Amino acid sequence: MDSCVIPLRHGGLSLVQTTDFFYPLVEDPYMMGRIACANVLSDLYAMGITECDNMLMLLSVSQKMNEKERDQVMPLMMKGFRDAAEEAGTSVTGGQTVINPWIIVGGVASVVCQPNDFIMPDSAVPGDVLVLTKPLGTQVAVNAHQWLDISEKWNKIKLVISREEVEQAYQEAMLNMATLNRTAAALMHKFNAHAATDITGFGIIGHARNLAQHQKNNVAFVIHNLPIISKMAAISKAGGNLFGLLQGTSSETSGGLLICLPREQAARFCAEMKSSRVGLSGAVGQDGGAGDGQQAWIIGIVEKGNRCARIIDKPRIIEVPYRGSVVSAQEGSHNNASPTEVHCFLAVL
Amino acid sequence: MDSCVIPLRHGGLSLVQTTDFFYPLVEDPYMMGRIACANVLSDLYAMGITECDNMLMLLSVSQKMNEKERDQVMPLMMKGFRDAAEEAGTSVTGGQTVINPWIIVGGVASVVCQPNDFIMPDSAVPGDVLVLTKPLGTQVAVNAHQWLDISEKWNKIKLVISREEVEQAYQEAMLNMATLNRTAAALMHKFNAHAATDITGFGIIGHARNLAQHQKNNVAFVIHNLPIISKMAAISKAGGNLFGLLQGTSSETSGGLLICLPREQAARFCAEMKSSRVGLSGAVGQDGGAGDGQQAWIIGIVEKGNRCARIIDKPRIIEVPYRGSVVSAQEGSHNNASPTEVHCFLAVL
Repeated sequence: MDSCVIPLRHGGLSLVQTTDFFYPLVEDPYMMGRIACANVLSDLYAMGITECDNMLMLLSVSQKMNEKERDQVMPLMMKGFRDAAEEAGTSVTGGQTVINPWIIVGGVASVVCQPNDFIMPDSAVPGDVLVLTKPLGTQVAVNAHQWLDISEKWNKIKLVISREEVEQAYQEAMLNMATLNRTAAALMHKFNAHAATDITGFGIIGHARNLAQHQKNNVAFVIHNLPIISKMAAISKAGGNLFGLLQGTSSETSGGLLICLPREQAARFCAEMKSSRVGLSGAVGQDGGAGDGQQAWIIGIVEKGNRCARIIDKPRIIEVPYRGSVVSAQEGSHNNASPTEVHCFLAVL
Repeated sequence: MDSCVIPLRHGGLSLVQTTDFFYPLVEDPYMMGRIACANVLSDLYAMGITECDNMLMLLSVSQKMNEKERDQVMPLMMKGFRDAAEEAGTSVTGGQTVINPWIIVGGVASVVCQPNDFIMPDSAVPGDVLVLTKPLGTQVAVNAHQWLDISEKWNKIKLVISREEVEQAYQEAMLNMATLNRTAAALMHKFNAHAATDITGFGIIGHARNLAQHQKNNVAFVIHNLPIISKMAAISKAGGNLFGLLQGTSSETSGGLLICLPREQAARFCAEMKSSRVGLSGAVGQDGGAGDGQQAWIIGIVEKGNRCARIIDKPRIIEVPYRGSVVSAQEGSHNNASPTEVHCFLAVL
């Protein structure tokens, strides 16, 4: 399970909690804070939990930063984390900061739940379909962006992608990683999801296999479609099957939810993902605005089988277009990190 | 407050949680795990909470360790952490491990409480006395032990302490740091404690000041006695007031609780600390055996004042004797770290 569930001594309640911390992988401290928060919360969302009672923030300041760099970069990262927590309807009360060679950012998310608040990820049945709520390819996009400055690496991929496209793919990846899986969690209840997990370090196939192994029924997951940030599949091929993106082994950070849904519900799930937002109360409401929602894709089916998962031989690659440089536009004034600061931040990555 | 208290949506319950992580400071991985666990739980105990619903373990493996060192050292540290959690009547479900230049060990402790389960640390009144449940001097003891191999440092203190005494003081400090403050937490309820905190990085005076500042009443804390691990005061003086031990500024790790108790209850609190143990159920029971309990000392008084804390000019130093090399005797078979392993562990401190 993505979170631990601890039965409490009080009236059928359970404590559900999860922790995750890692090292920065994008240059923008504010966005890195948002991503870290979204990534921690994602483990709750994967269980269909839409509320979080408290978050703790876990941080380390790099000893390589001087006081000025520290004072500029760390508050931005903390603000990103707090803003994402606020968007999730929770807040950060508590945490710990240490000095370390590397920057660390992460957190703990905890919620006390009634039994109906969460969906145990073990009830997939043959006939279900698999839905994915964010495109794949974040690892390729983040690495390609670093390779813009490493000619040996850049030469391997420059025939299939332009510098501008790399920049756009990186922005797209950053935006996706910072997006909360909260809407998906709410819609899991509405459309009777049977099981779900979130896609992170083990890639889509790793997490699909893990989810399949923990099913009560004799099922197998078969993935037919791979929605991937545009051009990332081409980069992976040009680099000699880089990170195994097309085999589903490429790591994702703060990826989407992989959800087993009754076949007849899946299309409506995807439609509501696109048109809905979860309000701060956790209720799902139509906001009427196109494009505010997230895209989701039906990517495979649940068959009878031996609790395993696979990608078919020639999966269909769905090229997910960039939405343009929406990050800086959308966040506007938050990000006043100077190029020097960004450099300092990167130097300790 | 030492822990954060989050009101829940369910029937007057609160989520109380805390996190702490740091770097190893003793050579024995098993004892380091126990100390880390005791240190995290201490924030709950300082609020009079005796139960913990769940712990998460936060770890990083040092990249300087080879695979063999890692496989020998990390399981011992994890076992120490788990054993202490078990002694506390809780368990470790969940956590995160990363690779890092330095070893990190820590955790998260969470409990869902009814209002009577915890004691808000804000109700000291003039006439109360201050009780401390572990001796001071852990930082001096740990450093003196490292100086056995640094002749320049050793020469400064060798006139006041023998090598054997340094070893014994170090064992004593390790044992104290690994001791749970759980008995003290249980006795806080029995003897109507008005406020408490645990003594860690800011030293006794730092934590006393912080506690005094958060009182509802106009009080001042005046510390008259400093219980200190034997000979550590002499080392501090010989080193030119090392770490400010006698001024109360020397850091402690997993130190005791500083508790404001009604004057007429304090002596009985200390007597029961010495003779009692908290069973796994959280109930306090007499075990009849002398020496199983912990010593506690009345160290000062609560006066009318301006929410401040001070140590009197010439505090009485209480030399707390070593109990002998009880650690290895008591833990027996746990600690099979070879000298090589211990060296590896130390090398990344």
